[in-house]
Amino acid sequence: MHILVSNDDGINSEGIWALVNELKKVADVTVVAPEKQMSAVGHAITVQYPLRVNPFYKNGEFFGYAVDGTPADAVKLAVKAILKDKKIDLLISGINHGTNTSINIIYSGTVSAATEGTILGIPSIAISLATYAPNPDFTFSAKFAVKLAEFVFKNGLPRGTLLNVNVPPVPENEIKGVRVTRQGNAFWDDWFELRKDPNGRDYYWLTGKFVNYDQEDLDADHTAVQNNFISITPIHFDLTNYKMIEVLKNSGLENLLQGLDKD
Amino acid sequence: MHILVSNDDGINSEGIWALVNELKKVADVTVVAPEKQMSAVGHAITVQYPLRVNPFYKNGEFFGYAVDGTPADAVKLAVKAILKDKKIDLLISGINHGTNTSINIIYSGTVSAATEGTILGIPSIAISLATYAPNPDFTFSAKFAVKLAEFVFKNGLPRGTLLNVNVPPVPENEIKGVRVTRQGNAFWDDWFELRKDPNGRDYYWLTGKFVNYDQEDLDADHTAVQNNFISITPIHFDLTNYKMIEVLKNSGLENLLQGLDKD
Repeated sequence: MHILVSNDDGINSEGIWALVNELKKVADVTVVAPEKQMSAVGHAITVQYPLRVNPFYKNGEFFGYAVDGTPADAVKLAVKAILKDKKIDLLISGINHGTNTSINIIYSGTVSAATEGTILGIPSIAISLATYAPNPDFTFSAKFAVKLAEFVFKNGLPRGTLLNVNVPPVPENEIKGVRVTRQGNAFWDDWFELRKDPNGRDYYWLTGKFVNYDQEDLDADHTAVQNNFISITPIHFDLTNYKMIEVLKNSGLENLLQGLDKD
Repeated sequence: MHILVSNDDGINSEGIWALVNELKKVADVTVVAPEKQMSAVGHAITVQYPLRVNPFYKNGEFFGYAVDGTPADAVKLAVKAILKDKKIDLLISGINHGTNTSINIIYSGTVSAATEGTILGIPSIAISLATYAPNPDFTFSAKFAVKLAEFVFKNGLPRGTLLNVNVPPVPENEIKGVRVTRQGNAFWDDWFELRKDPNGRDYYWLTGKFVNYDQEDLDADHTAVQNNFISITPIHFDLTNYKMIEVLKNSGLENLLQGLDKD
């Protein structure tokens, strides 16, 4: 089994290190990841500028390839250039330091790397440890990633669908189980702090609090994790709201040109 | 009717200028847009750095607010800070110079601005002129945007759904009509050119060609536009693949912890 690993916390982060060391016990692993922290970059790709690739060493040993771009860039470059003629059985993005549930999926670089893998036809997994505490222990998440990798390698994933995994930050014996979930209805109630820089000029800084509207619904990703379940959500990149197609067709929208003044 | 306008081509682009001038005939308009070109940024937001806002003048008159961030940043900042106490009836992102159909939706900053508006509860539209030719004529697209704005203002949109509009780059009398479509199955067959910089160091540059797998299906966004229809796709930010939830539940995935060595 040959696994491509990427992330959005950067190639020098603890989460990717823990993941790779555990995966190497059962698979060949190639790491291609952003050289710097790239959180909240969404599905950005670099088209206006070139990309550089540098070998990255850790504790004196070659660890992987550092790309001066986004997570999606790293995955594209891995598949289309660095590993061009090599079979890739699986892509795993992570282990992210921080929660990637509900609306965070939209902003997540971790998920974006797995989305790019999915677009390129590789079964892909995004995995996050759901805590913002400093220096969390990635050991259990990494062990779970190995089990999940073996499961997906054996069972496959339907083309176009990836697994978004969030692991609760509790001791292993407190984890209640695994739940297949939907993207939850939780959102940022955010605002901007208006401040003055040392030269007296205004600047804004985003902050906010996270509000979970799903309450006790354990079928929602965020709630499942809060209740100490490992959450696994199948997500895809078809954003069409199919239910709305018929509604819009019946709304008169397709006749809109008739009202346009053709002069 | 008060309309917030943003884009990803930057506040000084021709597409936003054409859109705003046409919208001002029927509505109050506030422009809050990135100060620079921000194509292919996906749904990136800026959390690690502060944001600046500067008034932007065009032909000696105040045109709008320039934000040194992404399209999603601009919309968040508009709603949560600049227009904090003002009602916003509608958000329009565009007019983008370039096609935003099928897989491009994932990478699009234009769509991202409308997605952020939708997340914040504002009925939102992304509009693109489907050509990469230099200096295209945005006149018809802008007139159509006004008609569509009036339609959405009157009929509303369901919470969580936005309209992604692509206008074919042909003379008005060659446009065949409006079609409500789905996100198409068209993808980039992309590769990287490996080059040497003036100092002899390697760099990679992304390029590729666009391949449409939908053939003649006029219900697909890209094909509709290629056949001179205005394409309108209802898209949402719930990425869950609901069909897969039951499949995964029956696959044994929820029993995966039982196989994990608890030491």
